Amino acid sequence: MEKETARIEGFSDGVFAIAITLLVLELHIPDIEGSNRQALVKSLIAKWPSFLAFSLSFFSIFIMWVNHHKIFKQIYRRDSALMFTNGLILFLASCISYPTALLARYYGTPSLSVAVAIYTGLFVLINLAFNLLWGIASRHKDLLRPEISQVAIRKIKRNYQYGIPVHLSAFLLSFCWPEGALMLCALLWTYWAFTSGKLDLSANKTRDIS
Amino acid sequence: MEKETARIEGFSDGVFAIAITLLVLELHIPDIEGSNRQALVKSLIAKWPSFLAFSLSFFSIFIMWVNHHKIFKQIYRRDSALMFTNGLILFLASCISYPTALLARYYGTPSLSVAVAIYTGLFVLINLAFNLLWGIASRHKDLLRPEISQVAIRKIKRNYQYGIPVHLSAFLLSFCWPEGALMLCALLWTYWAFTSGKLDLSANKTRDIS
Amino acid sequence: MEKETARIEGFSDGVFAIAITLLVLELHIPDIEGSNRQALVKSLIAKWPSFLAFSLSFFSIFIMWVNHHKIFKQIYRRDSALMFTNGLILFLASCISYPTALLARYYGTPSLSVAVAIYTGLFVLINLAFNLLWGIASRHKDLLRPEISQVAIRKIKRNYQYGIPVHLSAFLLSFCWPEGALMLCALLWTYWAFTSGKLDLSANKTRDIS
Amino acid sequence: MEKETARIEGFSDGVFAIAITLLVLELHIPDIEGSNRQALVKSLIAKWPSFLAFSLSFFSIFIMWVNHHKIFKQIYRRDSALMFTNGLILFLASCISYPTALLARYYGTPSLSVAVAIYTGLFVLINLAFNLLWGIASRHKDLLRPEISQVAIRKIKRNYQYGIPVHLSAFLLSFCWPEGALMLCALLWTYWAFTSGKLDLSANKTRDIS
Repeated sequence: MEKETARIEGFSDGVFAIAITLLVLELHIPDIEGSNRQALVKSLIAKWPSFLAFSLSFFSIFIMWVNHHKIFKQIYRRDSALMFTNGLILFLASCISYPTALLARYYGTPSLSVAVAIYTGLFVLINLAFNLLWGIASRHKDLLRPEISQVAIRKIKRNYQYGIPVHLSAFLLSFCWPEGALMLCALLWTYWAFTSGKLDLSANKTRDIS
Repeated sequence: MEKETARIEGFSDGVFAIAITLLVLELHIPDIEGSNRQALVKSLIAKWPSFLAFSLSFFSIFIMWVNHHKIFKQIYRRDSALMFTNGLILFLASCISYPTALLARYYGTPSLSVAVAIYTGLFVLINLAFNLLWGIASRHKDLLRPEISQVAIRKIKRNYQYGIPVHLSAFLLSFCWPEGALMLCALLWTYWAFTSGKLDLSANKTRDIS
Repeated sequence: MEKETARIEGFSDGVFAIAITLLVLELHIPDIEGSNRQALVKSLIAKWPSFLAFSLSFFSIFIMWVNHHKIFKQIYRRDSALMFTNGLILFLASCISYPTALLARYYGTPSLSVAVAIYTGLFVLINLAFNLLWGIASRHKDLLRPEISQVAIRKIKRNYQYGIPVHLSAFLLSFCWPEGALMLCALLWTYWAFTSGKLDLSANKTRDIS
Repeated sequence: MEKETARIEGFSDGVFAIAITLLVLELHIPDIEGSNRQALVKSLIAKWPSFLAFSLSFFSIFIMWVNHHKIFKQIYRRDSALMFTNGLILFLASCISYPTALLARYYGTPSLSVAVAIYTGLFVLINLAFNLLWGIASRHKDLLRPEISQVAIRKIKRNYQYGIPVHLSAFLLSFCWPEGALMLCALLWTYWAFTSGKLDLSANKTRDIS
């Protein structure tokens, strides 16, 4: 069966690629008297929250893309619900640069908690949208790759089950310990990065035995 | 028959993806004293017209892409007229960020009507361009997917017939009730989003019976 | 024979799509007291050189992309010279936004001639690069589509022969009559737009008879 | 065997294309009284470090893309390590615009050495990441194109061996002679540009004889 979703994937790749690359526009170079080398170095070091926020968001969008890639490997046909849920995911992905800029600007001030609450809140929405996408795809089995097994469908679902509770905890934590909330997010994304191969492997196995 | 339009679709996807993602650059973060958490929250809430304009335009470009996708699924060959009409659509799509910024800037002031008139006027042009595109494609039947039926061609045409009168009404309405004009646009786009599946389904049916 | 150039075309489409869409970032909205509707309208109208420069450059990059598309339809294999000449074309294409901004900023002042000289000078370079690209591709016949005829190769070459003299004339004209130089460019591009189909047709015919 | 890496390549092409095209946003036009043509010309000439930095970085990202293209021509399957190393390369590529802006801003001042140290240091990291990518791909032979020979694998590895020592030397040189460090980088990239075809040819030969 031919894959119907090539152009959706191409468009989504475009949006993810742009959203991830535009992040760098939020990094502003220091405007210092050029004769003072020490001052430039100091000013660059003082900008570390910007670099951290940039790296964190780059990593998070990359993880989103990996997940998107993995889910759409299993989707062969599309309907309107799928297309608009995908649109919602792209909308949320392109929003990430905004709380990233807030994070970079308000790091080290009491207002950080506001920035982190918006940041983690956005990821709660992103996880809801990914769950919705996979829910729609797996409910209509004729949208999926024909040879996919029930085990593989459940495995993908299970992989995302940590997303909502962890990001929700990070959202709540952001009001009393915003730095901790960011660490919690980074931890989950690292976990996803390291386990992303396993799911992929099992999906391949499933294909072999079906 | 091989599809000749792959690279046009790839280029168009690129332009749509960039136009939709660049919208976020118009959202500026508030620059407030970091110790005042209340002020940051207030200032973010005061920016709701920016967020609304961003969301509205994101949605509208996404709908345009869905339509573009749907039309080009039926087009197999290209000529110059088709290519330049497509170029016109991309030109208009990349313009959307400008009246979006006007909308965000002048919301709540008497100048809003100017912004909304330009915004809705642009969508009148976009609908004319889409009609022209489908007109060119369906006039030269050898540009289309060979097995397409006359019923499907008419159905696609009919789907776009609401576009020009509704956006024209919104344009006229913008001079006396600009908020209403925006609502009218949002309503039409929501209608298109919900009915986009039906056309698609019928196109598939057509393929089955032809 | 399989086409080896798919990823070059994909990357080039990406650069063209971004270069064409980034142009809109040079359009700045007027920052006027919101209660004064007349002032906003006047200020928007006063910005017409920006809109003209934006439209002109959008059109020129689109024509470049159409030409690129047409040339690469005939190229099946690649070598280093081809890849780096293509890189040069992409470099020049991504530069266009700079003289476009100069044009918009200095229209109506005596400095316009400087802006137009840079603008037209850039297009002389672009035409040299396109000639170089087609020269490299047509010299090594094994880089081309196997069934291409000598007539088609010459036809493509002839199509580009106006580019260098006309843009060079526009460059020289820019020092005494910059507005005329811009018109000359626009005229050539319009001519290319209208004749682009004919070349394409002949290439198809060639395929049929070869 | 089908290539599994199409979507990784598409996404990477997108990021490279955007990173290379966004560089132009760092070029700001001079804001001079329009009646003074001489002043505009002078001010444009005075901006030559910006143009140099822009050209250098454009060229470097293009070389990165050529290398990426060449490596992925040999890679047919992917695992998590490969995907995340590729993510690291894209991260570093999208960072290049930052030290480019530093370079343009601090050229001709004593702070140039700071800018060049960051610039060359980034390229050390990029070369480490490319080595890691090829290391991962060539260790698991089942990730590679089935018919690839041991000779071709070593040839690709050898091609990158100059990268780390030369960029490291440029990094060290930047502290005493930053202009020389930049020249050293430009020299290596030019060498890579001229030799890139040879490797490619040998890879083709390998395919023919295997």
